[in-house]
Amino acid sequence: MSQTVGTQSIQFEQAPYIQSSASIVGTKEGEGPLGKLFDVVGSDDKFGEDSWEEAESTLQKEAAVLALGKANLKKEHIRYIFGGDLLGQSIATTFGLMELNVPLFGLYGACSTAGESLSLAAMAVAAGYGDNVLAVTSSHFASAEKQFRFPLEYANQRPLSATWTVTGSGAFVLGVRRSHLRITGITTGKVVDYGVKDSMNMGAAMAPAACDTIYQNLTDFKRKPEDYDKIITGDLGTVGQEILIDLLKEKGYDISGVHMDCGIEIFDSETQNTNAGGSGCGCSAVTLSAYILPKLEKGIYRRVLFVPTGALLSTVSFNEGQSVPGIAHGVVIEHAA
Amino acid sequence: MSQTVGTQSIQFEQAPYIQSSASIVGTKEGEGPLGKLFDVVGSDDKFGEDSWEEAESTLQKEAAVLALGKANLKKEHIRYIFGGDLLGQSIATTFGLMELNVPLFGLYGACSTAGESLSLAAMAVAAGYGDNVLAVTSSHFASAEKQFRFPLEYANQRPLSATWTVTGSGAFVLGVRRSHLRITGITTGKVVDYGVKDSMNMGAAMAPAACDTIYQNLTDFKRKPEDYDKIITGDLGTVGQEILIDLLKEKGYDISGVHMDCGIEIFDSETQNTNAGGSGCGCSAVTLSAYILPKLEKGIYRRVLFVPTGALLSTVSFNEGQSVPGIAHGVVIEHAA
Repeated sequence: MSQTVGTQSIQFEQAPYIQSSASIVGTKEGEGPLGKLFDVVGSDDKFGEDSWEEAESTLQKEAAVLALGKANLKKEHIRYIFGGDLLGQSIATTFGLMELNVPLFGLYGACSTAGESLSLAAMAVAAGYGDNVLAVTSSHFASAEKQFRFPLEYANQRPLSATWTVTGSGAFVLGVRRSHLRITGITTGKVVDYGVKDSMNMGAAMAPAACDTIYQNLTDFKRKPEDYDKIITGDLGTVGQEILIDLLKEKGYDISGVHMDCGIEIFDSETQNTNAGGSGCGCSAVTLSAYILPKLEKGIYRRVLFVPTGALLSTVSFNEGQSVPGIAHGVVIEHAA
Repeated sequence: MSQTVGTQSIQFEQAPYIQSSASIVGTKEGEGPLGKLFDVVGSDDKFGEDSWEEAESTLQKEAAVLALGKANLKKEHIRYIFGGDLLGQSIATTFGLMELNVPLFGLYGACSTAGESLSLAAMAVAAGYGDNVLAVTSSHFASAEKQFRFPLEYANQRPLSATWTVTGSGAFVLGVRRSHLRITGITTGKVVDYGVKDSMNMGAAMAPAACDTIYQNLTDFKRKPEDYDKIITGDLGTVGQEILIDLLKEKGYDISGVHMDCGIEIFDSETQNTNAGGSGCGCSAVTLSAYILPKLEKGIYRRVLFVPTGALLSTVSFNEGQSVPGIAHGVVIEHAA
């Protein structure tokens, strides 16, 4: 039982390695500040499919196949997939990953799913349940708008606090073979509800969950914010970032010097009209793969805390007057010599 | 790496124990053949709430609290919850388990989620990631009809191949403390698609996935069907059962002597108008807790293969003309002396 630390964390005795990763994004993401870093930028957001949902499935499949190729692995070498997306009944994952013909654990953690899938994949490899496992997540702007807000044809106006769902998928092969990237620990989040009822302000809804998980990570591992080169949330956006920094200050931690948010990095909100920033399972996944992992691999970052954040709502829960609780799953990734 | 067996299975070196379980069901389930065995039968299917979705959340919460009580544990003793349901964005789980304030891994595997949650919970305990973890799943007839078919007020007719979603939740505490019930192995399923496009015939859609997982379990563990006292599928119903037995005969295994289906056991289709049988995440979970585990505990069964089956569809995928693929997760449960 020695691997568990504190009340919510694991420090892996045999920390799994990230063998490879891949990112695939849509046109808008390709035009953003990180555009040149992604493995694949689609020429249009349908990715050759007839519907937005099938397009999202294709994103997952392509990201997975690309990550396998980079790791010089075939699908037969993968013991498990841990995958998920934002759509009802996770159909992007089902139809996207079906052809791989690999045992699948379907996950749902809203936009925190990238952290959830990396956590469970790391737990599986560290326990000896598989030499190679795959973590895949995705989101698509058009399928998410249809699912959660309005079909694109409505051309509805968006409040400044709204985020822009990233069209993209990130896939990660975790395994026992040495590389320069290791997942050394995780901090699994609880559902945290501050009673926010505005589904157009998900940054505010998710910030308390991010605060809770980051605070718990620092406590469980007995670390200070400066022990991380970066503490990286998934998609709080500008509104959520401010709340997060304030909430953690109240608890005695100042992360303002090391905080980064994938949703803020991925778009230039001034020129791209993305308001508070990017969001979606794909946002943190593609930013991790294309922007953060290369810095860790080269040793520019030695250790980061990656904390994708999810807003737990459906149109049904929202229309029935429920609040929008949040959840955040923390993953500690380190440079390995 | 010695715990992995064959291509899709794990045989646990330190097999976790089932410390306790609890079942809570609706009125119709209470009137069925297993009615007297459930821990709680609601007096009406709203369970004191204003909406069907909140009622389902309450089912999960009550089942979880009851299971904790039976194991003489407080929520603080639970390291993780592995939970899921059928609703879009898994809202029954989010709002149901929030108050427990325990780190949550949200899962989606349609009606196979009971098997998925027990598998991941067993993996976590066997790896030393927690002394006690909780697996919880639920379904509710009315919330599922609203989600997947028609609101109840439509009073639509149901084809004979249709199943009846069980109103119920089952919760299971897994841990390291000795008991008479052990999860000794798992076989994790792949997505299997035979191209069935009839969402009112989910037994047919899921039977190939059940076949695949059962076949793989027998192969990986080098067992014959008779090595199990029962091979128990989740909710194939009468239509799916026939297909499953035929498919496995083609692969050289005759399970007709040991097969049981929770969906067939839970209702009396003659008198209860449930057509092909019960279904839903709750169906297999409450049947396992109330009917199967007591027999294993007493040693009437020595070893069973529990294989909840899921139909992976949403109204969006269905309306866009997609097929209904299936998935099934196998869990080997044994009597421990």
